[in-house]
Amino acid sequence: MRGSRSATRAVRIVRRRGLRVVRSRDALAVEEPLEIRVSWQPAVGARSVERLAVTMRTPGDDFELVAGFLHTEGVVRHPDELATLTYCPGPEAQEYNVVEARLAPGVLFDVEGLRRNVYTTSSCGVCGKASLDAVEARACAVLPEGPRVDGALLPVLPDRLLDAQSVFARTGGLHAAGLFDVDGRLLTVREDVGRHNAVDKVVGRTFLDGALPAGDRLLVVSGRASFELVQKAVVAGIPVLVAVGAPSSLAVDLGRRFNQTLVGFARDGGCNVYSGQARLT
Amino acid sequence: MRGSRSATRAVRIVRRRGLRVVRSRDALAVEEPLEIRVSWQPAVGARSVERLAVTMRTPGDDFELVAGFLHTEGVVRHPDELATLTYCPGPEAQEYNVVEARLAPGVLFDVEGLRRNVYTTSSCGVCGKASLDAVEARACAVLPEGPRVDGALLPVLPDRLLDAQSVFARTGGLHAAGLFDVDGRLLTVREDVGRHNAVDKVVGRTFLDGALPAGDRLLVVSGRASFELVQKAVVAGIPVLVAVGAPSSLAVDLGRRFNQTLVGFARDGGCNVYSGQARLT
Repeated sequence: MRGSRSATRAVRIVRRRGLRVVRSRDALAVEEPLEIRVSWQPAVGARSVERLAVTMRTPGDDFELVAGFLHTEGVVRHPDELATLTYCPGPEAQEYNVVEARLAPGVLFDVEGLRRNVYTTSSCGVCGKASLDAVEARACAVLPEGPRVDGALLPVLPDRLLDAQSVFARTGGLHAAGLFDVDGRLLTVREDVGRHNAVDKVVGRTFLDGALPAGDRLLVVSGRASFELVQKAVVAGIPVLVAVGAPSSLAVDLGRRFNQTLVGFARDGGCNVYSGQARLT
Repeated sequence: MRGSRSATRAVRIVRRRGLRVVRSRDALAVEEPLEIRVSWQPAVGARSVERLAVTMRTPGDDFELVAGFLHTEGVVRHPDELATLTYCPGPEAQEYNVVEARLAPGVLFDVEGLRRNVYTTSSCGVCGKASLDAVEARACAVLPEGPRVDGALLPVLPDRLLDAQSVFARTGGLHAAGLFDVDGRLLTVREDVGRHNAVDKVVGRTFLDGALPAGDRLLVVSGRASFELVQKAVVAGIPVLVAVGAPSSLAVDLGRRFNQTLVGFARDGGCNVYSGQARLT
């Protein structure tokens, strides 16, 4: 799993539509970390390099991404302040996952001022594999077998989540996450403008109740399944993650590595199963 | 604009449906920063406090959010490792925007190990007002008047963006951002699993072309309009931001402060205008 320059990747999946269950292929949007480094001259003859940010992104137009990030974060105001943009050489897997932006001579860079402004969201490594390893290093074990879940239940769960949403119906502006038991009963629902926050709220409630790992629960999310969401479910020991939208490539990699049942496109009476098919009846 | 404990906020907007333009009200999902602090005992009799992260969230269930974040980031593994969760006293505006998690005596906290793992996404302050001030401090000026834009064009632009998307049609897993001229011609389109990345790519391309500030352009995004996206458009000097989904409360605050034309729910022949109505004909 080396750094990729492709925006899509094909995977084998299982498609479920009513009683029909067929093996199939699906294209995933690739998700890989990109580390942004800034190199500048604090004084004549000196050069400093700072690791500024790591963002989970789809490969392609990486230099534009870095330029846009640096401009909107206030690091560079004019194109001529940016001398070069290059991929950093490194271990093969990281080949296209680290970009160094070299500032033009004389361009000041207030790294401390920027550090105060940037904020953190979640953990990851510097390539897809490192991101997966980081979850493992957090002492997360592969999810045990079981429980058995009725596959016909999966496309229904997002509707039950939607029925339980309060604010969303009024604004359309909130993501939701819901924890269900294996019979499809909704136990906890939380909403947020950030989908990772909605999941944190559900996991946090369950954690505070002393009910983790939640080995007989299903987590349902209203949007797409990113690496970050799968990671949170894995750490909470939740064996089944159901998303209304598509999973990313790294989300599927993580689900497979930890034997999680990862389900996408759960709607209109069907769904796609990307990993952990064995739990479904 | 003090820290809010409410998940929604009502605003006055302009609804456009075909030729009908009516003043109306709309409910927004509230978006406010939450700072997460961890307090622990590195040695008997000593106590350290670390500002761990700031996340843009919808108020409500904040203690659950912090507990879930700390658990999924590997800081606490059992509920009894978490002694207390409290809002930190402070200036009124931040009253409910800073939560301190106090670890139980004897719980070790590897702040450096976590720092290596967390990554940054965007800038903000510690309350909504500070977030807005931070954009202003980045030497961003209020967007000048003009250009004039045909209001009937707005609901059409997302369809044009969708037509130009390549990978999205195959996977459904990618956000898109597109830069249009005032006649509705698509100039640049970029896709990514992260919507902020898609916007960074479009802004970065335009920046590298020396075409910023883009004072006669419209930015169209496939999802919702968060504070972060409005901020990026403001910094790039783009006067019109059109979203297929809903804007957040802080996105609308920012759009209004910088005189940006912020448009949401642009679909099915209509749209809602949250600020900068004067540019629309």
